[in-house]
Amino acid sequence: MKIKYELLCNDTKTKARRGKLHTNYGSFDTPMFMPVGTLANVKTLTPEQVKACNSGVILSNTYHLWLRPGEDVVDKAGGLHKFMNYDGPILTDSGGFQVFSLAKPKDITEEGVFFKSHLDGKKLFLTPEISINVQNKLDSDIAMSFDECIPYPASYEYAKASTERTLRWAKRGKDVFNNERQSLFGIVQGGEYTDLREYSAKETVKIGFDGYSIGGTSVGEDKPTMYKMIEDGIRYLPLDKPRYLMGVGDPIDIIEGVIRGIDMFDCVLPTRLARHGNAFTLDGKINLKNLKFKEDFTPISTECDCYTCKNYTKSYLRHLITCDESLGGTLLSIHNIRFLIKLTEDLRKAIEEDNILEYRENFINRYKKETK
Amino acid sequence: MKIKYELLCNDTKTKARRGKLHTNYGSFDTPMFMPVGTLANVKTLTPEQVKACNSGVILSNTYHLWLRPGEDVVDKAGGLHKFMNYDGPILTDSGGFQVFSLAKPKDITEEGVFFKSHLDGKKLFLTPEISINVQNKLDSDIAMSFDECIPYPASYEYAKASTERTLRWAKRGKDVFNNERQSLFGIVQGGEYTDLREYSAKETVKIGFDGYSIGGTSVGEDKPTMYKMIEDGIRYLPLDKPRYLMGVGDPIDIIEGVIRGIDMFDCVLPTRLARHGNAFTLDGKINLKNLKFKEDFTPISTECDCYTCKNYTKSYLRHLITCDESLGGTLLSIHNIRFLIKLTEDLRKAIEEDNILEYRENFINRYKKETK
Repeated sequence: MKIKYELLCNDTKTKARRGKLHTNYGSFDTPMFMPVGTLANVKTLTPEQVKACNSGVILSNTYHLWLRPGEDVVDKAGGLHKFMNYDGPILTDSGGFQVFSLAKPKDITEEGVFFKSHLDGKKLFLTPEISINVQNKLDSDIAMSFDECIPYPASYEYAKASTERTLRWAKRGKDVFNNERQSLFGIVQGGEYTDLREYSAKETVKIGFDGYSIGGTSVGEDKPTMYKMIEDGIRYLPLDKPRYLMGVGDPIDIIEGVIRGIDMFDCVLPTRLARHGNAFTLDGKINLKNLKFKEDFTPISTECDCYTCKNYTKSYLRHLITCDESLGGTLLSIHNIRFLIKLTEDLRKAIEEDNILEYRENFINRYKKETK
Repeated sequence: MKIKYELLCNDTKTKARRGKLHTNYGSFDTPMFMPVGTLANVKTLTPEQVKACNSGVILSNTYHLWLRPGEDVVDKAGGLHKFMNYDGPILTDSGGFQVFSLAKPKDITEEGVFFKSHLDGKKLFLTPEISINVQNKLDSDIAMSFDECIPYPASYEYAKASTERTLRWAKRGKDVFNNERQSLFGIVQGGEYTDLREYSAKETVKIGFDGYSIGGTSVGEDKPTMYKMIEDGIRYLPLDKPRYLMGVGDPIDIIEGVIRGIDMFDCVLPTRLARHGNAFTLDGKINLKNLKFKEDFTPISTECDCYTCKNYTKSYLRHLITCDESLGGTLLSIHNIRFLIKLTEDLRKAIEEDNILEYRENFINRYKKETK
């Protein structure tokens, strides 16, 4: 069965929308933040710990699983859900982001992309067909089209050529797609150019996908440009399909994305911040290594309902982090993931109550006051 | 309340005994293996994960907590149980093992021991009074006397002088001990010398403690010597107090210890092995990095009831370990701890059924056949 998006209600003053996505592995509410499980695990967490954060869906990385353990191993295990013991919805990316981060422009050809393995420098060649074939075998619930994530800034000529090529890649990927249980998303590119975003969105919709993603943001552009990139593409996307903003996990960006009509987000930020001792709070980020927490026997946040805040003090977390005990990263990952999921829960409630603009104002005023 | 040892039954052919230890934080069955939580956490595991292994009591290290975060921080947190969110029994060692591993013989004086911090080389001085004072503040359920763990081999003269000094230290520690909720164990030393073991045991019992430990084993001696060290001391210990063999976690050594009358064991082995990709099985240890497990979709052991074996395959565990994902170490730690705890459960059952010698034979025949 393909996924099905159910629209529950719209905010009346913005494009924000509240919905539900139904998959073969259960349904989840949108807007929703997806924790990232790069190598078939959300770093340092068991599936039960991830689910206890009330997460509805997780993301895993095709490029990384292609290299280790290889899609055939996952296929023989019975697919990614069985392999990693996660019976909830899983989305896999396409490897397109690795094209951006590991390849040089001259390595990108019409056929596909040459780049060097981050593990051993071995030359690799990734094509739309390989990406889709790998994802079909991983058997995630949602696969992503193989795209080029355009750097910022990029010349109009480069962005135009890349956007057109990404459309051809999307078509090629869809043509070889072969997994009836799996859904496929198209990706809107176009860089920072309004007309290219429009062109990309319209042509991607013409090819026809089960959902759509906004790509090419969070690559160094300023915030107004990022929000405009979203607006320039999303207005042409069908209302009956889910929209996913790739690689975005900053709390304020999530709010701005939801207000512009985004349903799904993913980012390594909560787990990466955690491993470096950082925690989200409604008053901005804090670093647990700070000496001032040495004898602070209160939780990270008394307003948070996560396992970590219910059971551990800042003093203990600081102790674990400063002693390089990985349980510290585990406990902070739980908190940070729960923070972003709770944010999307609050946003869903704000949409239902039709007061998301007020919610944004209150959130930002408090969050930015403390974050320096 | 001090701990209370309840003897439930004796094996008729050996010194093995089945009992229960009652503490302020609940009771646990003996013989029992104690997972080690060096820095106020069993590495990579939450307290719930440790308890799910059916562990009855954990050990934490006084030396490490003395340095970080410092006993005053733990004291202000309300003691070690509250600090680390563990509401089961906790035993703290005395720092004596660090004397063995970090100090040179000339650094050991009548007053105490000079050694260098393993963190920054800072000169430290640890005495029986400091060790007991730190443990009183940590507020564990069971504190250990400060002792010297004699190296092997050691001259008779050195062993005798050290054993006598350890007795004086035990007396000094007991004199300053000041925590009514906490119990204190004495430690039998004496190196490899039968008469010194006898002397140490008898004199330690004369001072009078809530339980007794056999120290100075697992320091390089061969197995027959180790088992003799146990026998030479334990025969003089009172039957109504628990006996603890320090630093022992090899499955066969646990069996041999139980047969000689030991009630409690601790070792970092299960968690350390786990972090290096090793897992205990009834057929010997296996290393999950082995290529032969790449497409092995069976659990580490179909006979194991741990969370890891119920939910994960060797193929997935190998993937996590080879990718340096710390979840691999977490899952193997759970398995290895559960393996040793299950071993003590089986030993308790064997004592109840009066067939521990048969159990030992069957276990060793199978375990040694595969372990090369």
